[in-house]
Amino acid sequence: MIFRNRIAICLLLTVLAIPVAGHSQGHPNLIMTKAGVEEIRAELGRVPLFDATVENVREEVDAEIEMGIDTPIPKDFSGGYTHQRHKQNFLIAQKAGVLFQILEDEKYAIYLRDMLFQYEAMYKDLPVHPQERSYARGKLFWQCLNDSNWLVYMSQAYDSIYEWLSPEERTRLEENLFRPFADFISVENPQFFNRVHNHSTWGNAAVGMIGLVMGDDELVQRALYGLQDDGLEAGAKDNDGGLIKVAGQKVGFLANIDEPFSPDGYYTEGPYYQRYAMYPFLVFAQGLHNVKPELKIFEYKDGVLLNAVNALLNLSDADGEFFPLNDGQKGMSYHAREVVTAVEVAYHMGGRDPQLLSIAEKQGQVLLDDSGFSVALDIRDGKAQPFVKSSINLSDGADGKQGGVAVLRQGNEDLALVFKYSAQGLSHGHYDKLSFSLYEKGDEILQDYGLSRFVNIEQKGGGNYLKENTTWAKQTIAHNTITQNETSHFDGKYETGSQHHSELHFFDSSNAEIQVASAMETNAYPETEMRRTMALIKHKNFEKPYLLDIFKLSSIKENQYDLPFYFMGQVMQVNFELDSSSTLSALGERNGYQHLYVEGEGKPTSDNSKFLWMDNRRFYTLTSVTSDSDQLLFTRIGANDPEFNLRRDAALMIRRKQAKDTVFASVVEAHGSYSPVSEFAVNSNSNISELKVVYDNRYYTAVSIEDLQGSTSIFILSNTDASATKEHEIEFDDRVYHWKGPYHYSVE
Amino acid sequence: MIFRNRIAICLLLTVLAIPVAGHSQGHPNLIMTKAGVEEIRAELGRVPLFDATVENVREEVDAEIEMGIDTPIPKDFSGGYTHQRHKQNFLIAQKAGVLFQILEDEKYAIYLRDMLFQYEAMYKDLPVHPQERSYARGKLFWQCLNDSNWLVYMSQAYDSIYEWLSPEERTRLEENLFRPFADFISVENPQFFNRVHNHSTWGNAAVGMIGLVMGDDELVQRALYGLQDDGLEAGAKDNDGGLIKVAGQKVGFLANIDEPFSPDGYYTEGPYYQRYAMYPFLVFAQGLHNVKPELKIFEYKDGVLLNAVNALLNLSDADGEFFPLNDGQKGMSYHAREVVTAVEVAYHMGGRDPQLLSIAEKQGQVLLDDSGFSVALDIRDGKAQPFVKSSINLSDGADGKQGGVAVLRQGNEDLALVFKYSAQGLSHGHYDKLSFSLYEKGDEILQDYGLSRFVNIEQKGGGNYLKENTTWAKQTIAHNTITQNETSHFDGKYETGSQHHSELHFFDSSNAEIQVASAMETNAYPETEMRRTMALIKHKNFEKPYLLDIFKLSSIKENQYDLPFYFMGQVMQVNFELDSSSTLSALGERNGYQHLYVEGEGKPTSDNSKFLWMDNRRFYTLTSVTSDSDQLLFTRIGANDPEFNLRRDAALMIRRKQAKDTVFASVVEAHGSYSPVSEFAVNSNSNISELKVVYDNRYYTAVSIEDLQGSTSIFILSNTDASATKEHEIEFDDRVYHWKGPYHYSVE
Repeated sequence: MIFRNRIAICLLLTVLAIPVAGHSQGHPNLIMTKAGVEEIRAELGRVPLFDATVENVREEVDAEIEMGIDTPIPKDFSGGYTHQRHKQNFLIAQKAGVLFQILEDEKYAIYLRDMLFQYEAMYKDLPVHPQERSYARGKLFWQCLNDSNWLVYMSQAYDSIYEWLSPEERTRLEENLFRPFADFISVENPQFFNRVHNHSTWGNAAVGMIGLVMGDDELVQRALYGLQDDGLEAGAKDNDGGLIKVAGQKVGFLANIDEPFSPDGYYTEGPYYQRYAMYPFLVFAQGLHNVKPELKIFEYKDGVLLNAVNALLNLSDADGEFFPLNDGQKGMSYHAREVVTAVEVAYHMGGRDPQLLSIAEKQGQVLLDDSGFSVALDIRDGKAQPFVKSSINLSDGADGKQGGVAVLRQGNEDLALVFKYSAQGLSHGHYDKLSFSLYEKGDEILQDYGLSRFVNIEQKGGGNYLKENTTWAKQTIAHNTITQNETSHFDGKYETGSQHHSELHFFDSSNAEIQVASAMETNAYPETEMRRTMALIKHKNFEKPYLLDIFKLSSIKENQYDLPFYFMGQVMQVNFELDSSSTLSALGERNGYQHLYVEGEGKPTSDNSKFLWMDNRRFYTLTSVTSDSDQLLFTRIGANDPEFNLRRDAALMIRRKQAKDTVFASVVEAHGSYSPVSEFAVNSNSNISELKVVYDNRYYTAVSIEDLQGSTSIFILSNTDASATKEHEIEFDDRVYHWKGPYHYSVE
Repeated sequence: MIFRNRIAICLLLTVLAIPVAGHSQGHPNLIMTKAGVEEIRAELGRVPLFDATVENVREEVDAEIEMGIDTPIPKDFSGGYTHQRHKQNFLIAQKAGVLFQILEDEKYAIYLRDMLFQYEAMYKDLPVHPQERSYARGKLFWQCLNDSNWLVYMSQAYDSIYEWLSPEERTRLEENLFRPFADFISVENPQFFNRVHNHSTWGNAAVGMIGLVMGDDELVQRALYGLQDDGLEAGAKDNDGGLIKVAGQKVGFLANIDEPFSPDGYYTEGPYYQRYAMYPFLVFAQGLHNVKPELKIFEYKDGVLLNAVNALLNLSDADGEFFPLNDGQKGMSYHAREVVTAVEVAYHMGGRDPQLLSIAEKQGQVLLDDSGFSVALDIRDGKAQPFVKSSINLSDGADGKQGGVAVLRQGNEDLALVFKYSAQGLSHGHYDKLSFSLYEKGDEILQDYGLSRFVNIEQKGGGNYLKENTTWAKQTIAHNTITQNETSHFDGKYETGSQHHSELHFFDSSNAEIQVASAMETNAYPETEMRRTMALIKHKNFEKPYLLDIFKLSSIKENQYDLPFYFMGQVMQVNFELDSSSTLSALGERNGYQHLYVEGEGKPTSDNSKFLWMDNRRFYTLTSVTSDSDQLLFTRIGANDPEFNLRRDAALMIRRKQAKDTVFASVVEAHGSYSPVSEFAVNSNSNISELKVVYDNRYYTAVSIEDLQGSTSIFILSNTDASATKEHEIEFDDRVYHWKGPYHYSVE
């Protein structure tokens, strides 16, 4: 740890003489303030988490200074050297800047100045990047997005040494580097800058932040409200297939807050991109708060920026890894540097929620700025409280009326279910209405595939999206939801998908025994109505809570419905006939089916088809109500994948042909365990003796679950009226059921 | 923790009055001694690890006492209820016994007595077990093996309450239960009892231990030396395909020490079964030591029982999991209860090696007997030292002259390579001469498949060996070694394999930069000589040590050679042409090939074929010298596996057709890392620019490895003379190489 004793610090403060240029407003003013820096310096050496981070960052930056500055001529995609080097440069530059402010050691300022002038020397004559894949090529990087990353970080770096530089140096940097840089990613690339998209958020923040540092209000206004006249035509698309211009849509930073965030703080692209986007949102907002407090940016749209941090944290599993909704790379978690920023700015600028401190503790590092300092200080003072994640329903859409995502949890995150009934999610959206994934203690049980991309791994398509992201990962069949007639939702058409969203039927987490979410989708297949209801139910006869899944379809014509369950782990046992061929062929030719091998074809032999599997030394059983004519297909991903871009993961798919109105009723039990050390298998069998659809019509659907101990649970759903006060009464099996609200649940 | 204060203990000692029957020799005398028990009682409450274990065991046993005793009529296989219940009974009975001795609480004695009399009542009329699969069916369990487990544990339990029971009770138990039980698993099942096999070891120990408790020397002699006249015919086989009787072979406990253990303590079946067998070896030995000290059992065969513990621990990866040589279930580790016993008896009875204490610390529990107590005491007193695993060569065979297993390690277990050149390994042996597996920090990089069995998981073939163990797991093609002409070693014939073993060429771990093992096999394919040399090499230009693999074949005819590398993880990149079909077929029809799908067919496009993969967020590259006519096949396990008994794991297989004499030269590099949180890929490329076989004839084989920094390493192998003093000189590429010993290694 740096500065173990106070004497060393005092000596240092006394010995160093810092040349500061005079300036009317005063720098730093973005993520650090003059007052904040004073406080940090005064407390240094007495705030463990902050001090430890200073020491880590110092080691990292010193090692880079030792290596020397390299600003190579740009040529590579994401995984390549020039990309990584320029990325590393801006990350280190920002860190060198805060170190200069905190430690007042001039070597950091000199390093920064020299790096900035190397960029200044190179930028004037730099052509656009030689890689041509992007709809908005950058100069330092293959896309303007990464150039914007650079400017967001370099603005902070520049702010840190602003007063230390001479006016002549500042003029040179601003005229030759920063202003042309800001113009390039905005006026010269309106198709990048003037959108509602995470790319544009970065562009807006980059331009706005350098504007704040330079005191250039024109740039700040451009950032906040976009370009007035962008010359773009409505309907054009980017290289990910996303729409560039929507007629009449507002643009700029504020519009990027308005549009993609719901009032609950859900970001329509999903948590992976929310994580990515949160950084520019919060870091620019922090600068705006400091320089333009009159804007009250953190109160904008009822404080949505701060709500968004809470929503994001709730969209993570028990290990803090984000649910990979839409295009999301698995493994990304709240340990990411962007989330460190988000949590700490939310703490510092928001209500100082002590639960955020426990996340910061797990992150194990803080920002070296005013926010990070207040977090470290309050952790030191013992204010942290556990971050409790319960069931939560997050609306989607700017107005919160475009569907949403529900997370059901039982047993303190032991089981978590993610149920997606959102809008399309812009260009990174998947065609997976009413899909779900299930987790036990942070491990995937029934997975969402995520994206098909190895981010920044050069050997895999330059680290960019692979073509299998379109042919597989986005397709409906890649998800735990219904595909009708082997065609993806909205026929896999982005324009159509973007016009619609699912509708919440109800969400009810008020009863600790049963957490329920229900939603419907009527546009994915125009002639078919889909309703799915998912419940996590605790019952004394079951070792762990179980999942009840009721998927009801109504169509005006006969269809084939495919409902896969992408399980993780090893097949243990099935209770149905299973044929397999020694030759594997693809299940279909398009819409993702071309990537699925059929490893086994099953035929139900009873009213309940059962499938037992084991993963992570735990057992799971799927029990599903099936009829003789259903097919049970074991599929495995990997067909037509010549470059091995896809994981060889498996599913059990229930296929129901020539069906119009039907109900898929299933239960997933988590149970038991196996130890390869003791070699004991505990509770390795399902506890369900019979699952039955006991009633089903337009108005009500009822399911009974009988367990081996002879207890029967009844779940009745009102399909048409979700009002909490509405009273219902139906009769079946010689019994009358009477209840109030959207569902009835009882145990006998 | 039990008895937190001393007063409680004193009170207890004062209050309880223990009825003890007089007895000339005195009980307990097996794993506990009268003196040991006195010492334990005196120190109780002051030895943390021991006290914690007492508390855990007490909770466990009390819960069972609460549930009541159940001795169901036997009917199930390994995974089923009756099996698990009887197994649980003997484990709990043994624990109740030690608790009675330590805590002097009579409820444990009563529980034990009642359980034993329930067995006594049932055993008299019990027929053999209804499941018919075993060559030696038990009564309580489906095989005599498990009945023997029962008696080994129950002997200890009986010993604990021997003096507490009345003479009449003892007589009844011995006449109706123990003596008939011991006779059943020995004289009535000579095919089980009179072998050299881990099954028999359990049988011998069971009979011997109950003999020691009963003071029945006839039983002890039977245990030590086997049945004099077993009436068995030479050549009969058990249900695993193992030979039952070998003409002229000695039998009994001592023979089971003589035969399967090499002088180095390697157990010929491999570590998984060694772990299993160590328990009866050591626990019976402990009893013999206590009751028949004149036998000097721990000095038998130069102290091989104690050496064996060291060998076993060395056959584990960095996480303590045993290498799954032959039939071994992955995940079994030195945390297993049998190894707890082995480590503690070795410590107590052996040289009190302080490194064993650190293993005991990791195990986190101790035996509640004299051994466990001395371990816990010395841990408390701070005597533990880290258990250091370095490269080690373990001979196989009773005389140490039947090949062996070499483990090469670099960087404190960061990389570990297991090279198998052993004998067949009895009935659990695999046909995998000169195969290897590679580990990084306890993770498998290039795997050994292990067995095809889900031990004690009833749903998978009753928890027993699956037929795929024979059709896949034992076959040569399931391993990282050469299969010739799609036929397993020794044509997959156990009788042939059992007559032969590979030969060590040399093992040299004296140079920290290069750890080398070399061996040859001339019998697996009678007309072909195979020599494999493996080295883990540290080189300053490489981030981590790399593996050099030189596999040299010489045959009198043309053959097809297949050399697979069963990699774990995801294909990242290859440098060769790769075709794939959208339909997968099995690679062959028999000898394991029927279980392999071909996912891709490659053709070399340069002299070095390269394959990059990623696993556990780390990168690996295989570089192999190939020629135009080689085939590079990506295979995946799973064909003809209708019950999903096999894991869907992948390999890259180098296939060389119509070859007589040839060398497969390969390097496996471990390098770099990837973080899905920072999304940085570090050092993701191979550092090798060229791998070349620069010289090869009957006498010498030389390989050069050039790296991207331009350094070239030369490795020259003497194929015929492994003497350490022999001087060699050869010339190639205009240079003369002169060295002493079996190999030359230099870096330029």
